[in-house]
Amino acid sequence: MIKVGVVGGTGYTGAELLRLLALHPDVSLQVITSRSENGLRVSDMFPNLRGHVDIAFSEPDIKTLAQCDLVFFATPNGVAMKMVPELLAENVKVIDLAADFRLKSEKSWEQWYGMPHACPELLQQAVYGLPELQREAIKTAELVANPGCYPTTVQLGYAPLLKHGLIDAKNLIADCKSGVSGAGRKAQVPHLLAECSESVKAYAVPGHRHHPEIIQELQVFNKEVGLLFVPHLMPMIRGMHSTLYATLLNTDMDLQSLYENHYENEVFVDVLPAGAHPETRSVKGSNMCRIAIHRPNDGNNVVILSVIDNLLKGAAGQAIQNMNIVFGLGESIGLEGIALLP
Amino acid sequence: MIKVGVVGGTGYTGAELLRLLALHPDVSLQVITSRSENGLRVSDMFPNLRGHVDIAFSEPDIKTLAQCDLVFFATPNGVAMKMVPELLAENVKVIDLAADFRLKSEKSWEQWYGMPHACPELLQQAVYGLPELQREAIKTAELVANPGCYPTTVQLGYAPLLKHGLIDAKNLIADCKSGVSGAGRKAQVPHLLAECSESVKAYAVPGHRHHPEIIQELQVFNKEVGLLFVPHLMPMIRGMHSTLYATLLNTDMDLQSLYENHYENEVFVDVLPAGAHPETRSVKGSNMCRIAIHRPNDGNNVVILSVIDNLLKGAAGQAIQNMNIVFGLGESIGLEGIALLP
Amino acid sequence: MIKVGVVGGTGYTGAELLRLLALHPDVSLQVITSRSENGLRVSDMFPNLRGHVDIAFSEPDIKTLAQCDLVFFATPNGVAMKMVPELLAENVKVIDLAADFRLKSEKSWEQWYGMPHACPELLQQAVYGLPELQREAIKTAELVANPGCYPTTVQLGYAPLLKHGLIDAKNLIADCKSGVSGAGRKAQVPHLLAECSESVKAYAVPGHRHHPEIIQELQVFNKEVGLLFVPHLMPMIRGMHSTLYATLLNTDMDLQSLYENHYENEVFVDVLPAGAHPETRSVKGSNMCRIAIHRPNDGNNVVILSVIDNLLKGAAGQAIQNMNIVFGLGESIGLEGIALLP
Amino acid sequence: MIKVGVVGGTGYTGAELLRLLALHPDVSLQVITSRSENGLRVSDMFPNLRGHVDIAFSEPDIKTLAQCDLVFFATPNGVAMKMVPELLAENVKVIDLAADFRLKSEKSWEQWYGMPHACPELLQQAVYGLPELQREAIKTAELVANPGCYPTTVQLGYAPLLKHGLIDAKNLIADCKSGVSGAGRKAQVPHLLAECSESVKAYAVPGHRHHPEIIQELQVFNKEVGLLFVPHLMPMIRGMHSTLYATLLNTDMDLQSLYENHYENEVFVDVLPAGAHPETRSVKGSNMCRIAIHRPNDGNNVVILSVIDNLLKGAAGQAIQNMNIVFGLGESIGLEGIALLP
Repeated sequence: MIKVGVVGGTGYTGAELLRLLALHPDVSLQVITSRSENGLRVSDMFPNLRGHVDIAFSEPDIKTLAQCDLVFFATPNGVAMKMVPELLAENVKVIDLAADFRLKSEKSWEQWYGMPHACPELLQQAVYGLPELQREAIKTAELVANPGCYPTTVQLGYAPLLKHGLIDAKNLIADCKSGVSGAGRKAQVPHLLAECSESVKAYAVPGHRHHPEIIQELQVFNKEVGLLFVPHLMPMIRGMHSTLYATLLNTDMDLQSLYENHYENEVFVDVLPAGAHPETRSVKGSNMCRIAIHRPNDGNNVVILSVIDNLLKGAAGQAIQNMNIVFGLGESIGLEGIALLP
Repeated sequence: MIKVGVVGGTGYTGAELLRLLALHPDVSLQVITSRSENGLRVSDMFPNLRGHVDIAFSEPDIKTLAQCDLVFFATPNGVAMKMVPELLAENVKVIDLAADFRLKSEKSWEQWYGMPHACPELLQQAVYGLPELQREAIKTAELVANPGCYPTTVQLGYAPLLKHGLIDAKNLIADCKSGVSGAGRKAQVPHLLAECSESVKAYAVPGHRHHPEIIQELQVFNKEVGLLFVPHLMPMIRGMHSTLYATLLNTDMDLQSLYENHYENEVFVDVLPAGAHPETRSVKGSNMCRIAIHRPNDGNNVVILSVIDNLLKGAAGQAIQNMNIVFGLGESIGLEGIALLP
Repeated sequence: MIKVGVVGGTGYTGAELLRLLALHPDVSLQVITSRSENGLRVSDMFPNLRGHVDIAFSEPDIKTLAQCDLVFFATPNGVAMKMVPELLAENVKVIDLAADFRLKSEKSWEQWYGMPHACPELLQQAVYGLPELQREAIKTAELVANPGCYPTTVQLGYAPLLKHGLIDAKNLIADCKSGVSGAGRKAQVPHLLAECSESVKAYAVPGHRHHPEIIQELQVFNKEVGLLFVPHLMPMIRGMHSTLYATLLNTDMDLQSLYENHYENEVFVDVLPAGAHPETRSVKGSNMCRIAIHRPNDGNNVVILSVIDNLLKGAAGQAIQNMNIVFGLGESIGLEGIALLP
Repeated sequence: MIKVGVVGGTGYTGAELLRLLALHPDVSLQVITSRSENGLRVSDMFPNLRGHVDIAFSEPDIKTLAQCDLVFFATPNGVAMKMVPELLAENVKVIDLAADFRLKSEKSWEQWYGMPHACPELLQQAVYGLPELQREAIKTAELVANPGCYPTTVQLGYAPLLKHGLIDAKNLIADCKSGVSGAGRKAQVPHLLAECSESVKAYAVPGHRHHPEIIQELQVFNKEVGLLFVPHLMPMIRGMHSTLYATLLNTDMDLQSLYENHYENEVFVDVLPAGAHPETRSVKGSNMCRIAIHRPNDGNNVVILSVIDNLLKGAAGQAIQNMNIVFGLGESIGLEGIALLP
């Protein structure tokens, strides 16, 4: 049994992480910390966990956490970086679901997150935890930076084309649609049901924190990557749909086969049949990413449709997948859940 | 033109009041106050009002308000009572959309609202503004206490039966369902879309502030009224559906005719044909209350279904209706809007 | 491994049943039949099942079904009764998720379902499959009539009070709220998103098919049961909330303890702490029923709040629970899923 | 008073048209036809119209319709073209809300709509009814082809840039999001609440009927227009959000001023302040199109955000606007409604 601690856990990624940990056969959940909710039983905050998670939130405490094999951070940005060095020193492995270790550039991180980084020396050491692209590195990682939700859909969508140099990497457009849970469990007027139900809007068109993260990782394929990224808020709880546009440099390839081959051994990427349009509900509650690829009128435009559940493959599910890899378990253990439909 | 001021106006009843005032042909909107949003243009907070309401929020100020013919309070409970005496002294009429003047009993008010009342002497003078039951008193009112949303549906639903003494008044049950806008435009976790969409719950079963208000007003018909009132939160923005239960003392009456006759001259109460089930969407955005009456299996139980838009007939629309009565205008002026369907 | 066949399976209860069967460790899914969808891969209809259910719909055929240990019917009412006698004759056990065997009275069945019953002789033999009330009979059942969703919430809610004779059984009121998936996966205008989103309505107030079913089963406790039952349609996919009213005959009992004791050994009934209000989302995707009990103002009214996921404890989950009992498996095997929240 | 007839009127555009006509001060609604609903009172189908529209659907009949000054067609594609020639011969003006007269090319029309055109000679005569681009022609039109919803947002969004030759017209991308009411009031499984709530998907990526319509009209500005158009279905009733991408040929222009100047005299196009992100709810129930323009990082990409209510400016509202122009009325008469928010 892997002894696991969770720091944070009062937000949606935390709640989802707890749900998955409670069902994981190889995990023993030792401690959940929350400064603000110290003493509150977890199941009093998240009633779905009644009967499944019986412990209470406790004060974050390095000594207690150091007795774990693995600590997940499901905290606001800027919290993990203050505790991670001590935990690593105690040989505790860390998976951070926030953004503290996603960017390699300290300067860029500080610019986008608006604070000094507490341990910039770890930025290079941290492994970016997108298993389909970084599996080998994750296997031996001490510190995993779990990717953002938008970056996950965008990278999985573009990877086969970029890897084979088939598209104009300088002019990518990602039009992304996210459910409201992506905004977190914070008391904010714009995310009240009465505000964002029955409405759609774009946001952060001038710039979004996931942009540098996507660029950094797509540059692994092509240093010249240029991306226009426009996120939108959808009137639903869960789900993310990215519509990815690119111009083909080579129109001779059978793109359907390319994608099917590229992902044939991936348990959490499902390439749909030609002509399909994935629905976000087809992955609701599951760790799957479903992808379809279109070339309208057999022209030189390619449109990739990529959907995930932002709280699973976009956050907590991916974190569990990373844990399984780090500890040498079957990659899908604890992630067998089938999407809830309808 | 009636010179109108609005105190508050940053919540949902305020926004709806502004929408209605902007369309009212006999109103000149002079001032909107908000301490917290002083200086902000109203249309920057409520983009639907762009091009329709061009003024900005200003500091609440008795002198400015005193130049109005009428001041609406769309404030949290406990605000109006601090300003109303001064305004009345200046011969300004007041319609309070909050609860400050709804209860006649100071003691009861202080118990349910958790604070001392600032001007208990006005509680008796205030007129309870449910036009279908209090029209004559409203005509000459200086201070109108605009009813709560739940009380409006419940009173309009039970009134014909209670008036004619046809039901056991001691054992009423009101099972009420409200859209989330009823909870207001406050940053609160339980009303985030991700919390209350795709879910239904009862709340305040042990006691709700609208209970004493309903009892007080139903006692006009029968001093022995007893009511079990259970409110529920629905995953939608607007709309209220009250399902009202009672035991018939007399099963000889044609209840359908009773209701049709009772409301035949009411422009904002629509008795549906026998056997109908009103939908809240049939009143979305309109000031209408639609009612259907059922007697299952021709037994001695009666079930009344009563729907309104909680922000219109349950708040701002009713306030405009009251204004029209107070100022001797046609009761439906500015309230001709037809429900938005779908 | 239990060899299982499914007849029907193109509706929502069918889809949910397939999801649960795919995850059940002791089940081998042999055949899924659908006359209309013969040849279509199940996962082409329900994309969430891609990679989990790899068979196609086939023509219903007794010979093939007879090779199963158990056949589930997830068909419209009136289908199962035509095939069940042959299957029973082949020693195949049957769990019917439709209503064909729920009523003991042939006359009542024919009145409510509008057709002659094809095998009325089986009505007495069929066991009503509400495990918390009928567990012993289910253990040896050949034919299980899986309860309706409304009846499940109502029976579990009233059972402790009726069993102990604590309430006036003649005057029960069940005000029930259901998500739209309860109406099935049929192309019908009233259940389009544009029709029933952002709206609430009561329906079938004059009479609903679940009424005689509830009465029949509550009469096990008290022959004099009388129930007023009003179902409502909620703007959400899944979830059912029943608000149950009764008058206490005895106000000395500690109702909280009564409920906790009554259900202490039940894995799928969770009595919430005193004062709680269960949310339907707390059971979304799980087989749990969560119940809270209130006595407003310590009076003689009792209000029970009972929530389930209509597709799980109200249909497919309960069917799996029944299967586990019939085949002597642990009752919660394959039903360990935790509700998806948010 | 303009004597108006409506053919069709049982779908959502029809319902919205009736709502607007009922409120229009210069219209006398003479007749509403529906073959399938002959005899049904309109308000029995659309309960929001109770008390506002008191006539019943009647059989379509040219003689009756010929007594109108204007006939609206709110019918499925292919119906209007069979009746329009006779009506025009009787000097009745026609506004078709369907697609029968939107395309100038008979061949293209027949390809996209899958049937022969009944009166191709009228295709050239028909005026494309987007007032902001075709106002002069509409003034004298006998037959107005009311635009599609997607085309309205896309044309209004790109027009200022294309008119001034500021973008690469050959490589436009329109990523469009529509509420479900756009799919019409037809009994179809994919548009059930239980299917399309809590989900997002793209559709018709290989080709959509609005594509040739958009191309045709944008070619007025530039013959070389090339457009990639991807529509998406949103989990909401009303609203359309188009996210429009283009590459600037000239980065010296002040785009904000360009848009503000271009639309300064348009009552139904609202250019938001720089940096804004329009929400579809800001136009819910109103005839407004709100637009924002972004140039991320001051680069050579431009992103235009354009929102409408698909049933108003995307259908019935625009039809009323066209009627006002055709009959020389003030363009906004009967369209003063303010968006319903929340």
